[in-house]
Parts: sequence; C-alpha cells; structure tokens
Amino acid sequence: MATISKGQNLVTLVNVFTVEPEDQQRLADALVEATENVMKHKPGYVSANIHKSFDGTRVVNYAQWRSREDFEAVIENPAPEVAGHLREAEKLGVPDVRLYEVAFSDGAPRE
Amino acid sequence: MATISKGQNLVTLVNVFTVEPEDQQRLADALVEATENVMKHKPGYVSANIHKSFDGTRVVNYAQWRSREDFEAVIENPAPEVAGHLREAEKLGVPDVRLYEVAFSDGAPRE
Repeated sequence: MATISKGQNLVTLVNVFTVEPEDQQRLADALVEATENVMKHKPGYVSANIHKSFDGTRVVNYAQWRSREDFEAVIENPAPEVAGHLREAEKLGVPDVRLYEVAFSDGAPRE
Repeated sequence: MATISKGQNLVTLVNVFTVEPEDQQRLADALVEATENVMKHKPGYVSANIHKSFDGTRVVNYAQWRSREDFEAVIENPAPEVAGHLREAEKLGVPDVRLYEVAFSDGAPRE
C-alpha cells in the first residue's frame, strides 16, 4: 500500500514502459520480482506500485523513495543484481523513467 | 490524498504529458484547475494527483475513478466545461492517457 499526498517529504519515480501486449504480464512480473528481491531492501525505498494498462501497451511503476540521492545511489553504478533486473525489464519494454514532485493531491482517504 | 493498493475496486488513470519546461508549471496549474472546477464534481471521481518531473519535461496526472464507465462518461462526448479544460491542457503539452489496473502494491502505510 502507498499513500500519495503533497506534504510527504518523498520523491516519486514514474517509469512508463511501452510494451507489446504479449509481453505485458511478463514485464509486470519482472518488475514485481525486482521490487521484492532487490529494491525494497535498499536504503530509502518507500513503495512500489506496478500497473498494467487495460489496452495491453503500457506497464507503469509508480514508486516512492525517501530522496533523490537514495534512488540515484541504487541506479547509478548499479550493483550486479540491480543491473540484471534492469536489463531483464528493458528486454521486454522501452522505459521512460523520471523523478517527480507531487504538485497537488486531492481525494478522500480510503481504507 | 490518495491511497494505492491492489484490493481497491477502482480504475487508475495515468496521463503523462510531454511538455516544454517553460510550460510545465502552467500545464500543472491547468490540470489542478480542471480537477477543482470540473472533475472532482463528476460521479465516480475518487482522486487526482498532479506531478511535475524535476527535469521539467513531463507532467503526470495519477487519478483514480470508481469505474471505467464513470471515467468514460466524462471524457466521451464531454460537456463543454470538460472539453474546454482538455483543449487548454493539450495546448500546453502532448498527453498520453490510459486506464490501468493495479497489479502489485508494496509499501508501508504512512500518515
């Protein structure tokens, strides 16, 4: 579970993969595996949320990190297990990864 | 505020706008205005969360709706006030809008 709000002192990573529909599930599975096996154990990890588009052509990872520095430490000069997961995902889809700040958040809290 | 989790019976809209850095703030402001003035008053609206990339080239709206039908009712054959906001946003950036399901969500609940 993750919470989006403007007040949190976090950075948001949005990685939009463009994918062939026949590879969508495998890519989603690869990102889940990378999260469970590697990313969630790194300092500064807060959340990861993997989404599949109904049209089959996108997989989105909406993730949160404590700081840009924490995320960049994982991605730049990646350890072999990180590099392996990145290569696996990039075999299945074309990523567009960027870091964001929350400018506005509106909605009712839900259980 | 919004909550991401796999169990929620919702659809997720992710709209990734590609934008010139000098238009990023105006586009974010236009999406906030569209949310406040129009979208949040439509049946089935759950949340909207506007993000600005640190590199200046993207604005992402991560929004939640009760169902695909609720969202499609707003967007297909849009009322004049909806169409006006869509046109305004599309003057400032190039949208890529799709509907998603949450396949996986991991993270600590935060206040």
